[in-house]
Amino acid sequence: MLMCGGSAKDLPSQTPQLARHFNVVDTFDTHARVKEHFESVDEASRKGGKLAIISVGWDPGIFSLFRLMSEAFLPDGDTYTFWGRGLSQGHSDALRHISGVDDARQFTVPNAEVLRAVESGERPRATGYDMHRRECYIVLKTGADREKVTHDAVTMKNYFEGYKTDVNFVSAEELLRKHSSTSHGGKVIRNGSTGDGGVSSGELCLRLRSNAEFTASVAVAFARAAYNMNREGTVGCKTVFDIAPRYLINDVDVFKYL
Amino acid sequence: MLMCGGSAKDLPSQTPQLARHFNVVDTFDTHARVKEHFESVDEASRKGGKLAIISVGWDPGIFSLFRLMSEAFLPDGDTYTFWGRGLSQGHSDALRHISGVDDARQFTVPNAEVLRAVESGERPRATGYDMHRRECYIVLKTGADREKVTHDAVTMKNYFEGYKTDVNFVSAEELLRKHSSTSHGGKVIRNGSTGDGGVSSGELCLRLRSNAEFTASVAVAFARAAYNMNREGTVGCKTVFDIAPRYLINDVDVFKYL
Repeated sequence: MLMCGGSAKDLPSQTPQLARHFNVVDTFDTHARVKEHFESVDEASRKGGKLAIISVGWDPGIFSLFRLMSEAFLPDGDTYTFWGRGLSQGHSDALRHISGVDDARQFTVPNAEVLRAVESGERPRATGYDMHRRECYIVLKTGADREKVTHDAVTMKNYFEGYKTDVNFVSAEELLRKHSSTSHGGKVIRNGSTGDGGVSSGELCLRLRSNAEFTASVAVAFARAAYNMNREGTVGCKTVFDIAPRYLINDVDVFKYL
Repeated sequence: MLMCGGSAKDLPSQTPQLARHFNVVDTFDTHARVKEHFESVDEASRKGGKLAIISVGWDPGIFSLFRLMSEAFLPDGDTYTFWGRGLSQGHSDALRHISGVDDARQFTVPNAEVLRAVESGERPRATGYDMHRRECYIVLKTGADREKVTHDAVTMKNYFEGYKTDVNFVSAEELLRKHSSTSHGGKVIRNGSTGDGGVSSGELCLRLRSNAEFTASVAVAFARAAYNMNREGTVGCKTVFDIAPRYLINDVDVFKYL
């Protein structure tokens, strides 16, 4: 069962409910509540003798795997995650809730300067705030005040405060025509030392034509794993870190990938 | 026990011999003989109740994992592996066996044109021959014939025949000063469709200051996995595809990587 609901209200109740009766995969992505979610899904799936895999997708998911594995391979190092350029659904929604805003989209864009430094092997001190800027395209309601809307946007806590935020006002027609891309992506880079003072780097980069389609594709791969592992008797809640890669494909001759 | 011998003569006898008494990790990289090696190591490690992980490193190893996983996530796609720019030990040795050659180094270099096409999302038909060129630096013995050495190099079966091969003659001093880099790397790219006709891409790139040090670092990570899994009672021979990522690190709080 592929759980396609939202992390805020759907999955916390739906995943445990279904996990008792089916092998399930979900895309739960609220980091602060993942342990709590894990425990309730674990209890439900064990009761039913089923297997659940939570928090799959590309981030959390593939990027998470690379963060863990690259740290295992380069223990003395620093990891950097860049998202974008791509549409953030959550930040777009947040803009739409500002008084005077008719419609809006927000694109997350890596900070080019920090990205270049990390790509060339440097290990700068940088937080998510320094590493990204937020590009907003807003359609105003008739009579709305640009300055007030801009102020409300850039100072919004948990969403825009602390980030470099560019606010652009556009017509409804222009929003649709120029700013409706569904592509997304990003990269995780780990720069580390293996002992001689020089830096070795591992980089995972995704360029996704359709964020939703790729996320679905990853969920299907982990559904194969849930099926294959449950058939061998494994039950309970798992994350991407618990899945041996061979379970992701049905191919029995894995040697060809070596 | 970390097995650091060569794949041709050391590991086929050493790994099974040691696998009976210790958890072992090796870097066996002769693709054509990996199944045979797997079976002899599997038998030995099961007899001793130990766990062995064979063919670790970056290729085979990390690149293998990405080839399998990216195909699981993008089943309708094509995978391309580019190596280099970096020193090939095997090809350098092959050059040194040519009559008239005193010393030599061979660097493998991705074909820039094919790389650019693949990086921009195309799915060209390309073999390893089209995707790389071989850059040779040769120190001649006194009186050796440049033309004959060049001919012997570029026509050597299994090593240079079929590749674009550049032969450069240098002095012993120049070879040491200009062509002694131990850095290596490469990238695996998978371009695939998720259903809408557009291409999504996943790319894993490694830039390694020291090939040997990084390979050792990967072996250590899989040694952690061998220890952690054997403690739970798992025995026999495994490849990188059988290792759930959480075993690669000793950190118990893996949720932080999500």
